[in-house]
Amino acid sequence: MIYFHNDYSEGCHEKVLQRLIETNLKQTTGYGCDEYCAEAARKIKQACNREDADVHFLVGGTQANLTVIDAALRPHQGALCAVSGHINVHETGAVEATGHKVLPLPSSDAKITAQQVEQVVLAHRNDDSFEHMVQPKLVYISNPSELGTLYSLKELEALSTVCHENGLYLFLDGARMGYGLAAKDYDVTLADIARLCDVFYIGGTKVGALFGEAVVICNSALKEDFRYIIKQHGGMLAKGRLLGVQFDALFTDGLYFEISAHAVKMADQIRACFDELGVQYLVPGITNQIFPILPDELLAELSRNFMFTEMERVDDHNRCVRFCTSWATKQENVDALCAELKRLSGK
Amino acid sequence: MIYFHNDYSEGCHEKVLQRLIETNLKQTTGYGCDEYCAEAARKIKQACNREDADVHFLVGGTQANLTVIDAALRPHQGALCAVSGHINVHETGAVEATGHKVLPLPSSDAKITAQQVEQVVLAHRNDDSFEHMVQPKLVYISNPSELGTLYSLKELEALSTVCHENGLYLFLDGARMGYGLAAKDYDVTLADIARLCDVFYIGGTKVGALFGEAVVICNSALKEDFRYIIKQHGGMLAKGRLLGVQFDALFTDGLYFEISAHAVKMADQIRACFDELGVQYLVPGITNQIFPILPDELLAELSRNFMFTEMERVDDHNRCVRFCTSWATKQENVDALCAELKRLSGK
Amino acid sequence: MIYFHNDYSEGCHEKVLQRLIETNLKQTTGYGCDEYCAEAARKIKQACNREDADVHFLVGGTQANLTVIDAALRPHQGALCAVSGHINVHETGAVEATGHKVLPLPSSDAKITAQQVEQVVLAHRNDDSFEHMVQPKLVYISNPSELGTLYSLKELEALSTVCHENGLYLFLDGARMGYGLAAKDYDVTLADIARLCDVFYIGGTKVGALFGEAVVICNSALKEDFRYIIKQHGGMLAKGRLLGVQFDALFTDGLYFEISAHAVKMADQIRACFDELGVQYLVPGITNQIFPILPDELLAELSRNFMFTEMERVDDHNRCVRFCTSWATKQENVDALCAELKRLSGK
Amino acid sequence: MIYFHNDYSEGCHEKVLQRLIETNLKQTTGYGCDEYCAEAARKIKQACNREDADVHFLVGGTQANLTVIDAALRPHQGALCAVSGHINVHETGAVEATGHKVLPLPSSDAKITAQQVEQVVLAHRNDDSFEHMVQPKLVYISNPSELGTLYSLKELEALSTVCHENGLYLFLDGARMGYGLAAKDYDVTLADIARLCDVFYIGGTKVGALFGEAVVICNSALKEDFRYIIKQHGGMLAKGRLLGVQFDALFTDGLYFEISAHAVKMADQIRACFDELGVQYLVPGITNQIFPILPDELLAELSRNFMFTEMERVDDHNRCVRFCTSWATKQENVDALCAELKRLSGK
Repeated sequence: MIYFHNDYSEGCHEKVLQRLIETNLKQTTGYGCDEYCAEAARKIKQACNREDADVHFLVGGTQANLTVIDAALRPHQGALCAVSGHINVHETGAVEATGHKVLPLPSSDAKITAQQVEQVVLAHRNDDSFEHMVQPKLVYISNPSELGTLYSLKELEALSTVCHENGLYLFLDGARMGYGLAAKDYDVTLADIARLCDVFYIGGTKVGALFGEAVVICNSALKEDFRYIIKQHGGMLAKGRLLGVQFDALFTDGLYFEISAHAVKMADQIRACFDELGVQYLVPGITNQIFPILPDELLAELSRNFMFTEMERVDDHNRCVRFCTSWATKQENVDALCAELKRLSGK
Repeated sequence: MIYFHNDYSEGCHEKVLQRLIETNLKQTTGYGCDEYCAEAARKIKQACNREDADVHFLVGGTQANLTVIDAALRPHQGALCAVSGHINVHETGAVEATGHKVLPLPSSDAKITAQQVEQVVLAHRNDDSFEHMVQPKLVYISNPSELGTLYSLKELEALSTVCHENGLYLFLDGARMGYGLAAKDYDVTLADIARLCDVFYIGGTKVGALFGEAVVICNSALKEDFRYIIKQHGGMLAKGRLLGVQFDALFTDGLYFEISAHAVKMADQIRACFDELGVQYLVPGITNQIFPILPDELLAELSRNFMFTEMERVDDHNRCVRFCTSWATKQENVDALCAELKRLSGK
Repeated sequence: MIYFHNDYSEGCHEKVLQRLIETNLKQTTGYGCDEYCAEAARKIKQACNREDADVHFLVGGTQANLTVIDAALRPHQGALCAVSGHINVHETGAVEATGHKVLPLPSSDAKITAQQVEQVVLAHRNDDSFEHMVQPKLVYISNPSELGTLYSLKELEALSTVCHENGLYLFLDGARMGYGLAAKDYDVTLADIARLCDVFYIGGTKVGALFGEAVVICNSALKEDFRYIIKQHGGMLAKGRLLGVQFDALFTDGLYFEISAHAVKMADQIRACFDELGVQYLVPGITNQIFPILPDELLAELSRNFMFTEMERVDDHNRCVRFCTSWATKQENVDALCAELKRLSGK
Repeated sequence: MIYFHNDYSEGCHEKVLQRLIETNLKQTTGYGCDEYCAEAARKIKQACNREDADVHFLVGGTQANLTVIDAALRPHQGALCAVSGHINVHETGAVEATGHKVLPLPSSDAKITAQQVEQVVLAHRNDDSFEHMVQPKLVYISNPSELGTLYSLKELEALSTVCHENGLYLFLDGARMGYGLAAKDYDVTLADIARLCDVFYIGGTKVGALFGEAVVICNSALKEDFRYIIKQHGGMLAKGRLLGVQFDALFTDGLYFEISAHAVKMADQIRACFDELGVQYLVPGITNQIFPILPDELLAELSRNFMFTEMERVDDHNRCVRFCTSWATKQENVDALCAELKRLSGK
């Protein structure tokens, strides 16, 4: 069985593992106050071109989302996001468990627009009953999104502008950030993100690390006492060094970007195969996720040797599914997938 | 200025006030353990035909909603409701502040169907990632709804059945319950509600009391330790007797139903006027709320002497507005409104 | 049976009731945005000599405590108070239910000192693991305290100073404030409290109102969006006017202070009787609460006609009990109590 | 600099590391549903002699504590523990952040007794105002405790009995469980713990793993939907396998017990040295933690080459400090410490 159903099926990249092995018996202080975390933070700030940022390392994405949002909001404030946003759908109400409402906006491509945000803010402000409603205060976007779509530089700038003009924070979930930045012709850089967002995180779990997300706080208003909130939510790893070691490895000699590019290259080959076969997609994509619409019989056959994720049914005979590549995807497995797809399609 | 913009513009019905005056200097124990509360609870249980129910008196609707939902749910469970549901829109995230997600369902008439509930429950159960999603456990409905619509007996029975077959609680917000029960040709009784719901409340704030909602818990699973939860959320009135006295008055000699009927009669007269003028409604109605669609110029004129609530804009020249009657609405004010409407319509 | 077991056994003062009757059918807007609330707020600000303060009316004490504390704190911050503090003992974890730890300080008289606060703050600051501990950010005191003790002006000034020098808020629970301010020789005024505290409330429930506490916010940092937080916790009364009307009555012609003085006068008579009988107290007192230590046999006899509250057992034969007077206490009942005490003591 | 200041200064035991390396590129499903987790759970249940238990793997101790307690309690219920308990002092209010009050009991040795629990439960039950107080529902103990003390079998049985007779849950925090079970002459086994507790966890972070705690749920009432609660609090690791792999290694061929015994052996040598030098302890101990009271000058000298933790000051010239050994402590470092202690003591 060959896994294409997600980008966290393996452990970590060999260089990350190597660093964990090398440092294993080194003694350090705990809770992320060690030299590895300091060095990783230094490299990340440099890569972001934000020497003034604070960097914190958290174990996973849900933890990062709930910690950032809880730290940023007062009790009556909520987080705007696409209705398909991870915090709205797939975190078992983690944000609500911290007391905050998620305010979903309609979206067909898992993205939201500056105009949507502005409309909500104005509607809130102009409503006579505004104090009876949750105050929108933070905009959560994922980039790449849950559907692999990407915000263009122009879209991101517009969101940043509308947020800052209206006193909202812009928070970018970068669980798959590497696979976005490495996408062909994508016009946004890490420095752009760090310039436009108040806070964001760089995903390690899905991009070469065993686990870990690097939260980068750019807006000073969000920096104070952040470590207390991490601890309160059980996110302060005793051996915080593990996160420092891994992100140090990922941000040494561009490893993070290099392995992201590999995943995108593998995905591009699969996309080329689908294109050749005339397959339609739920949404077009250029990152490591592919959402083709395929006939049930083909999927039944394909599932004998390949794992992928079932998405929504499109009609009585076709379903959208998801294929993911990652830093660990092997060329031979991509070749095997493409060959099988062609065989099953009779080509 | 004559107020039709809500049903809580005055104090309380004279008979309720009279009872408050009579009992004012009587000494009682606190926190709702007094004889007035006991007597009011007895009368309410009788009216509900549920001697086995528990009755608790709370100060207001948001408090009742958040207390019931927090008492009923475990941390990972959420409350289904219409997207327009009061808990989803107009309680400043009160339910989320107790840690629970509100799970909104699409609705054009502020009601939800048994089929919608069943689909959500099945979708949750059949989703591979079900543990990553909030578990639907309680269905919140308001009856009359925020748009004055009513659940028929058949609809209510279907909701009750689908809830109980799937282990969900059915919770009915009856902030305006009297105005529903008193509506002409409405086929649901208080006893029906008490038979079909796990928990509900009978609104006093909008129906003759100074304030107060009587929460009726029918399902034994929801009874334990409810008073602790009331206290924890600041809902246990030191002089709980005030609620007992008022509900005792309201449920003596059918006062609650009598004054509700008055409000509906007043609303029916206004509806007859709108009908005569050929006015369209956002939704048809038979309770104390009316949602006509009226031209901007007429509304501008009307607002000189009458207060009503602006709802959504329908097109460039027309807006939906809300007129409310109540137990306190005077015939002369209804006459004045109808006369003015006709004058402004040139009839 | 004559009640001395608390100060909320009756309804409200006749002048308050009169105002409720007079205004009962007047139409107003809801949620505390009416003219009565505005007028009451104006009078309270004047009485506090703080025209710059914000005044909000809440239904009860627990609600006021949880709303103020939740509005003031970030998630990792806690509230210091005496171990016997109402928020620590008798609110069913209402503060914790908003996510905040109560940080209890030892106290034998229900008061805490500036020195205690300073020590905790310094200990926190100097602890290597400070981020692993709840950050003290607010000091909660009740004045009069749960044991009827009072903070002197010097003590209050010292607390205020230590709080402000260390970035903490000083929050005073004045559920029984009137009975403190009216105590003989007490050197603190309402204006002192308003000058020294960041936020406090003036109790109505126990001092002449049916219910209600007037929260006065003096520190600008605590003012923003407070009404959202009230609503979120179910504390925004639809007919908010009821609170305005009552506080308007209480702060007209010094009624609040006059009726408080009556309660203290009644308590002073009872204290004089206990003194005459050579009775010891758990703590000495000058407000409306008295904590005598009495023999079990006498208490058994006394309880036939009088209600009082059992406090802690002192030894095998004696127990501390509490007698409360209030604005409603009748001279004849005090006389009856004193006569009975003397009779039972054989004097 | 040689570290004795905690038991999480290194990475993981070589055999654990080896298993992580071997399995690194193996593809598995996510979120702890993989074969490694299944195998580790099987071995743990066997070691506990509780085939009926549920085993879940969490990343850290604070996360385990808050997740278990939040899953077990209704909103008005709290957790009893020693005043020095980790959840009361060193988790930044993590339990309160889930809405629950921690109810601290006085303790000089970081343990609590069955009698204390019984007294609290009875006092609650017999208090007229019980609904105004947090209901004690769970007893949290740490074993070994924060001071390295241990519950004897008799003490543990008494706690278990009093809990179960009164409807409370007994929850044991075993962050350092190995170092307790391996202590000389300790009369409690893992099977005893699994027989007497409703839920507990076996610490990995401090005992040979990179990170991870194995939560064992014995009481069926606590099993339902536990994974939802893990996810909600951000505790569900995408690569849950990492926890399975590590605990599988630790529970293969008794590794967990073997490496625990090593740490205790090292601590025993240090204790023997302190005994020889006539040093007093804050509390006596037999696990991996040692709390000697030492003169300031000696500590100043010692701190040049050794790291240890400062505890409380005992008098003007002496302080209690903590030395920790672990699975990773080297004999040569213990020898160096003992030699230095003797040299500084002039022996």
